[in-house]
Formats: sequence, C-alpha cells, structure tokens
Amino acid sequence: MSFDYTPFLRADLPAPATRFGGFPKYNFVGGHNDAGSVPVADLAAAASAVLTREGPTLATYGLNSGPQGYTALRQGIARHLGSKAGLACSADDILVTSGSLQALDLINAVFIQPGDTAIVEEGCYGGAMTRLKKLGASYVGAPLDGDGIRMDALSNILDNLKAKGTVPKFVYTIPTVQNPTGSVMPVERRVELLRLAASHGIPIVEDDCYADLIWDGDRPTAIKGLPGGDRVVYCGSFSKSIAPALRVGYIVADWPVLSRMLPLKTDGGTGALEQMVLAEYLAGSFDDHVAALRSTLKGKCAAMMEAVNREFGAAAEFSAPKGGIFLWVTLPDAVDTMQLFKAAGAEGVAINPGGEWSADAAAGSHKLRLCFANPSVEEIREGVAKLAEICHREFGVPVRSGNVGRSG
Amino acid sequence: MSFDYTPFLRADLPAPATRFGGFPKYNFVGGHNDAGSVPVADLAAAASAVLTREGPTLATYGLNSGPQGYTALRQGIARHLGSKAGLACSADDILVTSGSLQALDLINAVFIQPGDTAIVEEGCYGGAMTRLKKLGASYVGAPLDGDGIRMDALSNILDNLKAKGTVPKFVYTIPTVQNPTGSVMPVERRVELLRLAASHGIPIVEDDCYADLIWDGDRPTAIKGLPGGDRVVYCGSFSKSIAPALRVGYIVADWPVLSRMLPLKTDGGTGALEQMVLAEYLAGSFDDHVAALRSTLKGKCAAMMEAVNREFGAAAEFSAPKGGIFLWVTLPDAVDTMQLFKAAGAEGVAINPGGEWSADAAAGSHKLRLCFANPSVEEIREGVAKLAEICHREFGVPVRSGNVGRSG
Repeated sequence: MSFDYTPFLRADLPAPATRFGGFPKYNFVGGHNDAGSVPVADLAAAASAVLTREGPTLATYGLNSGPQGYTALRQGIARHLGSKAGLACSADDILVTSGSLQALDLINAVFIQPGDTAIVEEGCYGGAMTRLKKLGASYVGAPLDGDGIRMDALSNILDNLKAKGTVPKFVYTIPTVQNPTGSVMPVERRVELLRLAASHGIPIVEDDCYADLIWDGDRPTAIKGLPGGDRVVYCGSFSKSIAPALRVGYIVADWPVLSRMLPLKTDGGTGALEQMVLAEYLAGSFDDHVAALRSTLKGKCAAMMEAVNREFGAAAEFSAPKGGIFLWVTLPDAVDTMQLFKAAGAEGVAINPGGEWSADAAAGSHKLRLCFANPSVEEIREGVAKLAEICHREFGVPVRSGNVGRSG
Repeated sequence: MSFDYTPFLRADLPAPATRFGGFPKYNFVGGHNDAGSVPVADLAAAASAVLTREGPTLATYGLNSGPQGYTALRQGIARHLGSKAGLACSADDILVTSGSLQALDLINAVFIQPGDTAIVEEGCYGGAMTRLKKLGASYVGAPLDGDGIRMDALSNILDNLKAKGTVPKFVYTIPTVQNPTGSVMPVERRVELLRLAASHGIPIVEDDCYADLIWDGDRPTAIKGLPGGDRVVYCGSFSKSIAPALRVGYIVADWPVLSRMLPLKTDGGTGALEQMVLAEYLAGSFDDHVAALRSTLKGKCAAMMEAVNREFGAAAEFSAPKGGIFLWVTLPDAVDTMQLFKAAGAEGVAINPGGEWSADAAAGSHKLRLCFANPSVEEIREGVAKLAEICHREFGVPVRSGNVGRSG
C-alpha cells in the first residue's frame, strides 16, 4: 500500500492528468510545427559558437544579464521588432519569458483579480480564456470580421460595460494572424482600436506570436508601435517561427509594468542555453529560415483547404488564412464539434472543437480549428477524409465528398 | 506622459523590482557556480550531437515525450538516482521542471493552502520560506545539529502540533549538504525521520539539489530510496552540478502526486534544448565533471574557511561543510547581520543575512551565509577581509584579524 496523499492535497485542484499516450495519428491540434523545417544544422552551429564563446557565463544565474533575460537576446528581439513590426524598443523594455504562455501568466498575474472583466476576441486562443477563468475573471468576446475585431461592436461593448460601471482590465487581441481565424488587422483599424481604448482609458494586450508567419512576410506595424502604443503590453514568441519545444517568449512593456512582473517570475530565469542559441540564431539565418518556413506552411495551408473543400464540399465554410498554422472552419448547425472531437479523437483524428476557441462556447459549437503545420500533406489528406467520414456517420453531413455522394 | 497602469494593477502585488545593476564585486550570495568549471566543450559537443540526431522533434511541444519531460532525460535521471542516491525509480515517476524552483512551486501548489503549517529546518533555504509565506502558510523550524534535523526536537514539534490539532502538510528537508549548514544527515537518522513521519502520518519533501556536491562523492541513500519512501516527494536539479543558468530540475513522486502537478505546469513544457543537451551530457562525461567540480569547490571552501578564520578569528564560528557551495557563520551577538548586509552591500560585498535563512529570523540575526563557488580564491580573500573591516567599523568586532589587532 502506497502512502495516501489525498488528505494533504489542496481541495481545489484541477482534475488529475492522464498519462501521455503519444500524439494522435492525424494531429490537427496545438502549435506544433513542420518537423522538416526545424533549422537543425544552424541551431547546432549556433549552440556550438555561443557556448564556445560565452559558456562560462552559465555559471551565474541569468548569464550576468539580470532577471530580464540574456542581454544579447533582448537586443536581438528589439532589432527584430524594430525592423519587422515597426516597434521601436530597447533591451530595457523587454522581459524574456519561458515561452509566451509564461508571458500570458505574468500579464494576468499583474492585472487580473477575481471578479475582473477582460475583453477578448469572439474567436480566441483557448488557453487565454482558460487562464482568465482560472483566475476568477470573466470575459466578453468582441465580434470579428475578415479584418479582426469590429470596432463598432467593440465600441458598443465598452459603452455597455461603462453603463454597468465595469472597467475592463484590458482588451486582449491577436491582431496579426488572428487565432483562430487567420485574419490580419489592417493598420487603420489598429489606429481605431487605440483611439477607442484611449477614449475608455484602458490598456491593450497584444499577442503577436504568429506574426512572423504572415504569408507575404509583410507585417503591419504592431499596435504597440503606433502612436499611443504606450497603453499596449506586447508579447511574442519563437515557438511558431523556430520550434515550439524551445520555450522562449517575451514581453515588451514599460518599466512600471515589467517591474511588477519581475517579482512574480519565480523560476530563477528562463533557460539560458535556449536564450543563447536563439540570440545567436536570430542574428544569423533567422530571416531566411522564416521565409522558407512561410512557404512550406502556405503549401500545407493550401493542402488543408483543398482537402476540406474536397471532403466537406458545401458543408464547410472558411476564409483563407493570411498566414499561420490553422484553418477555422464552420460546419452546418447540425454538427456539434465537441461530439465530433470525441468521435474523431477515438479514431486518431485530433481537432480543436470550436466551443473551446470561442468566447461564447455555444456560438462556436459547430466550428472547429484544424492545425496544418505538423502533419504531412499526405496526413492532411487522409485525416480530413477520415474526419468527413466520421462527421457523416455522426451527423449525416457532409452529404457529398469530392464527386461522390455519401449514402444518408 | 506615458499611460498610467496603476489603476489596472492588482492591489496585492509585491514591491516592484529595481533595475539589475550587475553583480557585486564580491559575490558571496546565490547558487552561482565556478565559471571555469562549466564543461563548455562537452556541452557544445552534446548540443551538436543531440540536435543533429533529434533536432526535428523540436517541432512538437514536449519532444514527443509528453508533459513529464524528454524521455531520454527522465531515463538518465532515473539511472543517475539509482546508482548515486540508492533511489530506484523509472522515467514514469519523474516530472522534469523548469529548475528546482518550479519544482518547489509545484509541490507547494498541490499541497499548500492559506492557513497551512509546514515543518522546515531551523536554518533553511530562504526561497522555500518566502514561498510558503506568500501562499499564506506558516512554518515551524526544526532544530539542527551537525547531522541535520534533531529527531528528539522534531518529535516534540510534531507532538505539540498534534496537541493543537494541527497536521503539518509536510516536513521540508535538505538532508544532503543542508542549506545553509552544509551538514549531511546519516542514514540512521533518515530512517528515524521516516519512522517519525509515519507515526504522525505525514509526507516528507526531500530537496536534494546539492547532493552531487558532497566532498567524498559518496551520497547516502536518499530518504525517498529507503523503506517507507513512498511518503516522500523528492526534487533535484542540475543547477549546482552543471550550471545554474540551465533551468532543469525534476520531481520524483508517485503518479497520484505527479498527475495533480501536471495541470498546474502551464508553461508548455520545460525548455527542450536544455533537456536534450543535459540528457546527452548526463550519459557522457557528467560523472567525471562532477568529480572535478567537487575538488574545485572543496578548494574554494578551504579558502573561504581560511579567510574567515584569518579575518574574523575567534569572532566567527562555523562547522566545516561536508560539501556544497556555502559556509554558515555565526558572529557575536552584537552583530546584526541584516545591518552588516546593508553596509557591506553598499561597498560591493554581497552576503546572505542569517535572518533570511532562518525559520526564526531573530535567532538567525547574527548569522550569515557565505557562498564560495563563484568568486575566485583571490576575491574570497579580498572580500572577506573587506567584510571584516566593515563589520569592525559597524560593530567593533572582530577585534583581531590575522595577527593584527584592530583599533576599537
């Protein structure tokens, strides 16, 4: 008999995890990337160069750079954001985090307390919403169109909250390659968002972790880079542009915000080796790599859209993403994607049910997110065909796949 | 005018951080290590080998290994603990963490809620106590002697708590190279500790992060490795044996505990590159490296003891550590080491005031911790001389340094 820890555990813990059983055969979820695109040789060369040159600094916490992270990496991020995102900042304005998930945790930790309200996007990164919920906050989803948040709708939401005496803690947005819709908010709308936020006196949280993956490579100016951007707390990541297993993200914010986050970052610093290798690589072939990765992902995106069109026909609606790693699909009202998620999962096809990616779970209940970066084109074709088959079996749709009618 | 975030920040945040201004000239604090001992070339070779072989797996979160961490690393840790610490475990029993600080955070997160009581050691790692305090828990310090926790005293503490109806959540101990005293708990006493914990039905948290650094290289069996060790949650780290800037620690525990921690580890996994490089290096020249590092640290420890003896003479009392990176020094009652900490800090000599490393802060107020791994022998000599000078100026002791009397 093993010792029974139950009486010693906190009463309010989430449900226990189950053992990891490996990835599903058709893995259309998560921020995984294209395995063939990981710049293995260049990362190895970067590791070797930077360790040979600066390895002994590993003997100190934080590499002599202090708790904001490795100075050379922060300088590299500042250069990158200046040239690619029109965001002028310096190493002093940057806090390196252990992935952009820690960035979100730190942002929430300084702003959110139970009972607070945040504004998110109507289709929204699921992890952002579960984090808010866990902290006892509620959120309102701002409606989206093909250019991101609809400003008329946001204005109404802010007015309604104001009428109720509620000041939201921030507007959380992924303006560039929105998750899950893949849209890109044009600059004029970013200016309008800043104007609205200013008129209500509230901050904005800009999550830009997919922005390197915009198909044409031409990122609009970050919201934080526009006039009035001092009300923006910005975060980014290398997970999507290099490799998700590397856990390095960052926050760009003014010192009055960063200085409150630092005491809450109790991990003794973000992994130094990863920071060193990324800094070295960022100063090297990063830009060429990202250009090649974009082209690979664009090809997989085309394969995914083609497969969904072929297998689901008129039953599936979507807009072509402007970049990124996912497709946001609307199925007929008859389809409950949570049920589809379970049925498909049991047969090795993993999807994100739309309810988990929607501020209004019911409104997302016949939508789904399909990630295309990790599976091969072959797996995309097979997996989507299998998904259509399961969907037909469960819900009677799609009625046609390709030129073949399915028996009802 | 920048945007004022103040009204949006949580009301209960800790004081803001100050800008990092570089390390002090004489750095006798923190878990920093000997810079010349970082195995730079071998780490670079390990990085190159493992990236070349397995680099593409970086494209998935968690390297296809699931949220417990890179399988090869967990296997290596299990082998290491089996052969060095007499702790039989498998990869399934291990959760890789982002440093042992995250390990402590996860342990506290599953066990501690406001109002709880924990038992710590009377001289104790400061970060362990600040974490408990932050979570609203209180702690009782168990008295130490040269062999670690005194079991008669612990027995009394447990009886007293029981009489008050208090069940402590756990006993937190660093049995091997105790922080700050540098003692090693003999196996018989470990058995006795398990017996006491069993008779009160409580768990033990065993923090073994310095255990590789015992001078004679011969680690006693971990408490968790002894019969009844199922009541022990064990954690360790590579920070002290390879480099603190690498943020890889681990927890060894039964699945009923690990499965409750996993949902709370919201960082998307511990840095993969660090895990891969450590796994490769652990299977390679790790043991030889640690042997060499021990010898270097033992030399620096001797230099520190010699310097303290020379500069403080009879005013300083300490026991020779049995391993590790720090010396725990008691000064005369007249000396307030918090005041000494401030005065010395202003002149570039960083020390840990004993109150921060003591469960009873007042009892530790004339003690201090001096870390010797990072400074050179030269810096140890100069810095301790300077510290004695400042101490004499502030408190009139020591009255003699070396053969030289100080004017009162």
